[in-house]
Amino acid sequence: MTTEAAFLDLLRMVATDPAARGLMDDAAVLPVGDAHLVLTSDTMVEGVHFLPTDPADSVGWKLAQVNLSDLAAKGARPMACLMNYALSDDEAWNAAFIFGLRAALYRSSMPLVGGDTVAMPKGAPKSFTLTAIGEATINPVPARIGARAGDQLYVTGPVGDAGAGLRLLQAGESEPAALVKAYRRPTARLHEGLALAPHVRAMMDISDGLLIDAQRMAAVNGLAVVIDHVPLSEALSALGGEGVEARVAAASAGDDYELLYSLPAGAEPPVPSIAVGRFTAGAGLSLELDGAAVPLPATLGFQHKAEATA
Amino acid sequence: MTTEAAFLDLLRMVATDPAARGLMDDAAVLPVGDAHLVLTSDTMVEGVHFLPTDPADSVGWKLAQVNLSDLAAKGARPMACLMNYALSDDEAWNAAFIFGLRAALYRSSMPLVGGDTVAMPKGAPKSFTLTAIGEATINPVPARIGARAGDQLYVTGPVGDAGAGLRLLQAGESEPAALVKAYRRPTARLHEGLALAPHVRAMMDISDGLLIDAQRMAAVNGLAVVIDHVPLSEALSALGGEGVEARVAAASAGDDYELLYSLPAGAEPPVPSIAVGRFTAGAGLSLELDGAAVPLPATLGFQHKAEATA
Repeated sequence: MTTEAAFLDLLRMVATDPAARGLMDDAAVLPVGDAHLVLTSDTMVEGVHFLPTDPADSVGWKLAQVNLSDLAAKGARPMACLMNYALSDDEAWNAAFIFGLRAALYRSSMPLVGGDTVAMPKGAPKSFTLTAIGEATINPVPARIGARAGDQLYVTGPVGDAGAGLRLLQAGESEPAALVKAYRRPTARLHEGLALAPHVRAMMDISDGLLIDAQRMAAVNGLAVVIDHVPLSEALSALGGEGVEARVAAASAGDDYELLYSLPAGAEPPVPSIAVGRFTAGAGLSLELDGAAVPLPATLGFQHKAEATA
Repeated sequence: MTTEAAFLDLLRMVATDPAARGLMDDAAVLPVGDAHLVLTSDTMVEGVHFLPTDPADSVGWKLAQVNLSDLAAKGARPMACLMNYALSDDEAWNAAFIFGLRAALYRSSMPLVGGDTVAMPKGAPKSFTLTAIGEATINPVPARIGARAGDQLYVTGPVGDAGAGLRLLQAGESEPAALVKAYRRPTARLHEGLALAPHVRAMMDISDGLLIDAQRMAAVNGLAVVIDHVPLSEALSALGGEGVEARVAAASAGDDYELLYSLPAGAEPPVPSIAVGRFTAGAGLSLELDGAAVPLPATLGFQHKAEATA
């Protein structure tokens, strides 16, 4: 067992409250009076979740979006957030970060209401946490669990752009701009999440990759999942074609922040979406492209290892 | 202007929602239906907020308590928390941390409902964030603001023990145990906060030191404050005596987590408390011990600089 798996097992023994959803979901759901609060928190660490060369305003923007994406997956309306900020000596960097954060908060009407600012020891990587509080718009609040055998699986947009953008930046490239932008300035699917919430059987956001996140959704539902289509953007197709290898790479790249959800077979998606597969009885993930089984890649998604971007 | 002051000015330009209380309070207060949520988040960094040699269970315990102390200052009942954990390779350390955290959460009936676990680059200092959500038990929710000229200022217990404990540990000592324990295992004054909330004019927790926190409370109220008594524990008096120097050191040491509050002159404190001073018209902090003015120390409290404990 990995150190992280062992740690999560420990955490689950502590986080036994129903609001924690067994730490298996994108967010906690806490009843307060007649309301259901949706609570989520994500940390971004330099060299792990962003590149040291990423512009500060894009880091601030993305910190907000990754949390908003968890609210989107719950169909929640953003209410407030708190930020924990590791202060940099570089005042221009700090200011640009806040500029990017503010743009994301204004766009989603999520006020910043508190947090903490800490000095870090010299040489420590930059590290930022945002905790977002939303209000659910429907009860029960959508969850990763709820899918049934026979359900169709959909995504709200193409996948792999952000992963391609990261690889371009790591190779010293900055074009095509659309792919770099997908990596640096993702936009959470808040409106789609609100529209989908009353209709979906199961929903989550794709933060680590279509394959790994579909596998997680299948596992929590005790189902098997077949991915039979990997939608690519025009920019990504133009860069790397639409061959099997390109589609497998796109399906195992992280940072997409599209929504992944299931509907009963035959139901019409209430927002523009692309069918990517289906749930069946059984267990495990399989991939079928152009009607033929395709071996799964060694790595199904982004693992947030320090090596990934350091 | 320091980098931190410049950054906080920037943050205040973003955090304009009334729930943020101008980022001048211990916590944010967010209305939800008929309830008022109290939101607070604190980050603890190795070498800044705790010693690399502090036992893991005490770090987990303290991470909960520093946040609970902010809820206490608002007279709030703990509802839930989220934790962001920088995973250590040392599984025994991780497990001991969770053991200490769990003890604090159980004691205060605050369930852990979510958060994030992140791998850090090699050599990065350990860093942990906890975000606590409470429900206010009275409206208006107590604040730092509300004190009036003539008010008496009280604390819920003696000050300086934790600071003395830190200095002992830094000098390689581990006795007296009571002082080391005050540093490593503080206990938030939740019950006192609940009992005080309906009666106080102003309230906050003392996290950085009696002098600096009293000065902050005075400043936000547009008042002057005179500290005329510094209560010491028996353990601290036995170690360093009760001279002026010992009392000034105790009043400028951090990590006490007692509550500091004001009542109208003549009002009876509703919980065991010690009068430490009074607010008057004017501005600034002054110190009077044994009836004589005492010069303020160069440092009024704990500044959370990386140098402090690194």
